[in-house]
Amino acid sequence: MDPRIKDHARVLVDDCAGIEAGDQVAVRASPESEDLTVAVAELVGERGGVVSVSFGSKRASRAHSLAADEETLATENAMALAKYEAADAVVQIRGGANLNETGDVPPAKNAASKRANQAVQEALLDSKWVLTQWPSTGYAQKAEMSTEAYEDFVWNAVNKDWDAVREHQAQLVELLDPADEVRIVSGDATDVTMSVAGNPARNDADDNNMPGGEVFTAPVPDSVKGEVLFDKPVIIQGREVLDVRLVFEGGEVVEHEASKNEELLTSLLETDEGARRLGELGIGMNRDIDRFTYNMLFDEKMGDTVHMDMSEDSRIEVDGEVVQQDGTFVFEDGFGE
Amino acid sequence: MDPRIKDHARVLVDDCAGIEAGDQVAVRASPESEDLTVAVAELVGERGGVVSVSFGSKRASRAHSLAADEETLATENAMALAKYEAADAVVQIRGGANLNETGDVPPAKNAASKRANQAVQEALLDSKWVLTQWPSTGYAQKAEMSTEAYEDFVWNAVNKDWDAVREHQAQLVELLDPADEVRIVSGDATDVTMSVAGNPARNDADDNNMPGGEVFTAPVPDSVKGEVLFDKPVIIQGREVLDVRLVFEGGEVVEHEASKNEELLTSLLETDEGARRLGELGIGMNRDIDRFTYNMLFDEKMGDTVHMDMSEDSRIEVDGEVVQQDGTFVFEDGFGE
Repeated sequence: MDPRIKDHARVLVDDCAGIEAGDQVAVRASPESEDLTVAVAELVGERGGVVSVSFGSKRASRAHSLAADEETLATENAMALAKYEAADAVVQIRGGANLNETGDVPPAKNAASKRANQAVQEALLDSKWVLTQWPSTGYAQKAEMSTEAYEDFVWNAVNKDWDAVREHQAQLVELLDPADEVRIVSGDATDVTMSVAGNPARNDADDNNMPGGEVFTAPVPDSVKGEVLFDKPVIIQGREVLDVRLVFEGGEVVEHEASKNEELLTSLLETDEGARRLGELGIGMNRDIDRFTYNMLFDEKMGDTVHMDMSEDSRIEVDGEVVQQDGTFVFEDGFGE
Repeated sequence: MDPRIKDHARVLVDDCAGIEAGDQVAVRASPESEDLTVAVAELVGERGGVVSVSFGSKRASRAHSLAADEETLATENAMALAKYEAADAVVQIRGGANLNETGDVPPAKNAASKRANQAVQEALLDSKWVLTQWPSTGYAQKAEMSTEAYEDFVWNAVNKDWDAVREHQAQLVELLDPADEVRIVSGDATDVTMSVAGNPARNDADDNNMPGGEVFTAPVPDSVKGEVLFDKPVIIQGREVLDVRLVFEGGEVVEHEASKNEELLTSLLETDEGARRLGELGIGMNRDIDRFTYNMLFDEKMGDTVHMDMSEDSRIEVDGEVVQQDGTFVFEDGFGE
């Protein structure tokens, strides 16, 4: 077994979930991830935990969804609910061979299943849970990478000294936490300002997502103003929307455009009141995530991004002081050079 | 998909488990059986049932068992218990690629896991449950057959008109049910007599095992006398014991011998008081099971066997009347010819 798989398991079991003797640990994984699942099960055993391993089947899920009516699909899954309510910890391992396996299930049926799954999700969030990624062929293809290169990418992003990461990121938390105003400037197209006064900054390291590596806070409603160009694709309903440009006034998007699939962006913004507002300011700090892979679990922690890319000529200002310039933070070597 | 897989699913969902609208259906399967699992999930959806599909991992189970101590392994799996208690029906599909995957787990650890699993088994037996077989490579190899030949074997034994089977078998039930004494004679080496007075005869067709195809009853304790030669291998602790010969007196085995691994037979008989007694008289009636495959799910329903093979010169007598001669029942064409 690749030694990086055992390292990955240790990060999940010890760092993220903190499995202890007597814990009931549910592992929900894709069949492709059996090696990582074996390593997790072994470590749970060493820690004195009980384990319940189950691989899902997207093909079976699709077949059931196509055959069942919406009423059936909206029925609560009492089995899954009971199981996750009984679990102290849940380890979820994504990674399929074909990411489009359930792509032809009608949206109304997906919506019904999602409603039925709500209580299960809540039970899951109520446990010590961690979501991670197996470097499967399907996700490698989505990332436009060879499987071996994608393995390197995933394990470089996951297998690290997370105590050191948390400590490093804490320096940004300390800058953002007491801050009033944050301004983000990138090239000519992005210049946006918002208040974060009173909102705590969070340090995401070895927590519920693995890889982690993000510092995030929330803007004060109504305070966001300026314009943003997203130079990475925005994925809406599984489709790419390119060169998204948003103009904010009084916290709301008042202008928008895109060079491809603009109508998807329009319909997203018109979903409800909240859809026009910025919910989170997240600053990616995992520099081993050095490329966009069409996978939010990684993309949002991409180094030197603000859930949008920072170009070479960029800066983040906190209360008028520059805290990041061209990708280097004020607390890092090389700042201002 | 092979059309026999859809037939197999229909037998499981409709004939055996009788899935109805609103049923919570747990499918616990080996990953190799995904095609059958997909067909089952589809049919459960058509019937209006909720489904929870999970594939197990023998490798993960082995890794956990080797790493955990006995105390951990003896801890109740509250997750599995909660899940199966919430299930109205459970479909279990066996079929691995390597039947020895957990073969190197120490017996004491297996025993601890078995104890921990007791309540889960009871919850499972309390549901509409069915256990069946996927024609996997591992089981084909165990049966000493090619995978394609084993597929034919499994689906011939499973895919049939089970109402007609039940009706046919009912004729033997009617003979055994009111009977006092049963005598089984085969060649020179088997001649055993037992009372079945007061014990009902059961008709196993499309019930909890698929394939089914057996009529069984229980002998009165102390009544079994005579001798039996098992001309098929008896499997004890995963090892073959050959040419087992037992002599019964007053319901107990008083003499035993075997040509290979006799010491395993000896230790089995010395386990406890009950180990020396015959618990069940089962008569296999599924003639599509025409060979021994080292798999009790099939072997015990093998046509013309009494959980031991009937040779060409054999008979079953009920209260002194011959009801089966050389493999043909009294209610079948060709009897006595």
